[in-house]
Amino acid sequence: HEETQTESAVQRLIKLYGLPLTGAETRSYSNHIQSYDQSRRIPRWVAEHLSNNKLVGGADRKHCKFKPDPNIPQCFTAHNEDYLGSGWSRGHMAPAGDNKFSEQSMEESFYLSNIVPQNYENNAGFWNRLEMYCRELTERFSDVWVISGPLTLPRVGEDGKKAVSYQLIGKDDVAVPTHLYKVVLVRKDMSAEPLAMAAFVVPNAPIGFDHQLKEYQVSLSELERMSGLTFFPKLDQTHPLKNLCSVDSCELMDFERFTLYITGRKVKSAKTLTKLEKIMAELKEAEITPDDYLVKLYLEKKQELLQKHRPESKSG
Amino acid sequence: HEETQTESAVQRLIKLYGLPLTGAETRSYSNHIQSYDQSRRIPRWVAEHLSNNKLVGGADRKHCKFKPDPNIPQCFTAHNEDYLGSGWSRGHMAPAGDNKFSEQSMEESFYLSNIVPQNYENNAGFWNRLEMYCRELTERFSDVWVISGPLTLPRVGEDGKKAVSYQLIGKDDVAVPTHLYKVVLVRKDMSAEPLAMAAFVVPNAPIGFDHQLKEYQVSLSELERMSGLTFFPKLDQTHPLKNLCSVDSCELMDFERFTLYITGRKVKSAKTLTKLEKIMAELKEAEITPDDYLVKLYLEKKQELLQKHRPESKSG
Ligand SMILES: [Mg+2]
Ligand SMILES: [Mg+2]
Repeated sequence: HEETQTESAVQRLIKLYGLPLTGAETRSYSNHIQSYDQSRRIPRWVAEHLSNNKLVGGADRKHCKFKPDPNIPQCFTAHNEDYLGSGWSRGHMAPAGDNKFSEQSMEESFYLSNIVPQNYENNAGFWNRLEMYCRELTERFSDVWVISGPLTLPRVGEDGKKAVSYQLIGKDDVAVPTHLYKVVLVRKDMSAEPLAMAAFVVPNAPIGFDHQLKEYQVSLSELERMSGLTFFPKLDQTHPLKNLCSVDSCELMDFERFTLYITGRKVKSAKTLTKLEKIMAELKEAEITPDDYLVKLYLEKKQELLQKHRPESKSG
Repeated sequence: HEETQTESAVQRLIKLYGLPLTGAETRSYSNHIQSYDQSRRIPRWVAEHLSNNKLVGGADRKHCKFKPDPNIPQCFTAHNEDYLGSGWSRGHMAPAGDNKFSEQSMEESFYLSNIVPQNYENNAGFWNRLEMYCRELTERFSDVWVISGPLTLPRVGEDGKKAVSYQLIGKDDVAVPTHLYKVVLVRKDMSAEPLAMAAFVVPNAPIGFDHQLKEYQVSLSELERMSGLTFFPKLDQTHPLKNLCSVDSCELMDFERFTLYITGRKVKSAKTLTKLEKIMAELKEAEITPDDYLVKLYLEKKQELLQKHRPESKSG
C-alpha cells in the first residue's frame, strides 16, 4: 500500500506543470467531427453521417471560403497561403457536397482543419466520384457513416530499406499525404443487421477511368495498422459485418455519366455564349450525346445569356 | 434552440459506433508517464521527474530485458525482433539510469513503449552524456523535470522541395526518428522562483566531443512547432523563465572523465584477466591516467579474477 502511495506521489510530481498536449482531442462541428494532427497541420480523421435528407438544400459552395479553423491553436494551423502556388489543391475530407442542407455546416467544411494537400486531378476526378458514390449510398441505405483522412505510407527504396517520405508545403510545413483513406459503414434501418462496411486507400495522384474502386479496397485491420487508428470502437464485433462491395456495387460513376455531370456544372456557371458553345463542342468532341437534363440546362442558360446581352429585347 | 438540438442529434449519430481512437492518451508508470504513437510504434513523449534521492539504489539494468509494453494494443506495439539486426540500437527515452531506486520502475523503462531506434554511437555517447548531465542537475536543483521524445524533421531536397523522410524497421514498421529532443525544467526549491528551462534537439547520429550541448539548444516554441506538442501547459507563463544554460553550465562530461567512467564500467564487467588488462591498455593508449577510483576498481577486479582462476588458493 505504501508503494502505491509513493507511485502516485511520483506521478503527481511528474504532472506538476502539466503533461505535454498532443492536441489529438476530437472537435465537433455542425455536420462533422474530427481530430487534428498538430505536427502535420492536417486532420488525422474526419467523421460524418450521411442521409438522404441532408443531401438536399440550397447551401452553395460558391459562398464559402477556405480559411483557418479558429478552434485550432494559431501556431499549429495551416493557412491558405501554404496551398497557393504549391502545386497541390485544397482537398476536403468531409466533402462540401455532403452539406447542402446547411450553410453553416458547408462553411465549416471549408475550415483548413478539414483539408489536406490533394492532387488536383485526384480531387476533381476519382476522389470526387468516390464522394458521389458515398452520397448515392443514401438512396439504398438509411444511414451512411464515412470517415476520411490522410496517410503517409512507406515505400521500399533502391537500397531495400523501407522508408516514409512526404513533402511539406508553405510556411506552415503542411504535410502532403501519399495516400487518402475512406471507411464507409452503412445500415438499411435500425433493426436490419448486419451492417456493411468497406475501407479504401487511394494514392494521392491522378487515377483514370481504367481503374475500379475495388482495386483500392483494404481490410479494416490493414487500414488500422497503416493509420495507427482504431475505427468504430463501439461497433459490436461479435456481429457479422458484410462487405459493402458484395452487398452494393462499389462502382463509381462511369466516364460518360461523369462527363455529363461535369458538363452540366460547367454549363450552369458559363458567363458568355461563346463559353457555353465551347463547353458543348467539347462534349461533342468526346463523342458523348447530351442527355435530356443537360439539353434543358443548355437551353435555359442560352436563353439567360441571350437576354443578358440584349437588354433592349426585354422592353421591345 | 431547435438548431442546437439538431446539431447535437447529428453529433450523436456520427458518434453512434464510436469515433476513431488515436491512442494518444497518457499512460502512467512507476517513474515515468508517456504518450504513444500508434502509427509509428514509438513514444510521442516521455516525462520524468528526477531528484537526488531517486538516483541511488541497487536496481541493476543487467536484470532487465527489453520487451513489448503489455499496456499497448498488440497490433500497435513494437517487438525486439524489429530492432535486432536493424542497424539501430534500442534507445531509452526515460533512461534506465534514472531508476536506480526501484526495480519495478527500471523494468518499466525497458518497455518498448519507452524506446526508439537510436544510432548506437549517439546512444552510448552524446545522448548518454546528456542523460548524465540531467542527473547531475539534481545536485544543484531539488527538482528536475525531463521530457524526451523522437522527431522526424524535414530536409530541403535537391529539387528545392521540403520533405520529411524516415526509415522503418522490422515487421512492425518501427519509425527511425531523424532527431531526438529533451526538454529540461529545473527549480531550486518550492519557494525559489523563477524556474529555469532548456530544450535540445539532437540529430539521431554520432556526435563527437568537438560538439557542445549548447549548439543543439532551441527555444521551446521552436520545439513545439517541430513536435506538434505543447509542453508544461500548467506552467505560469506570466512568470519569467530563466535559460538553464545561463544559470547552469549545460556542459557535458568531457572526453577524459567520460572515458574514465566508461572504463570503470568495463572493468566492473570484465570476465577474464586478459580482458581486464586489455581494457587498461586501451586507456593508456588514449593517454588517460586512471584516477584513484578506477585504480581501486581495477585492483579489486584483478583480485577477484585471480581467485576465480585459482580456486585451490582458497583452500591453500
Ligand atoms: Mg474534393
Ligand atoms: Mg540510452
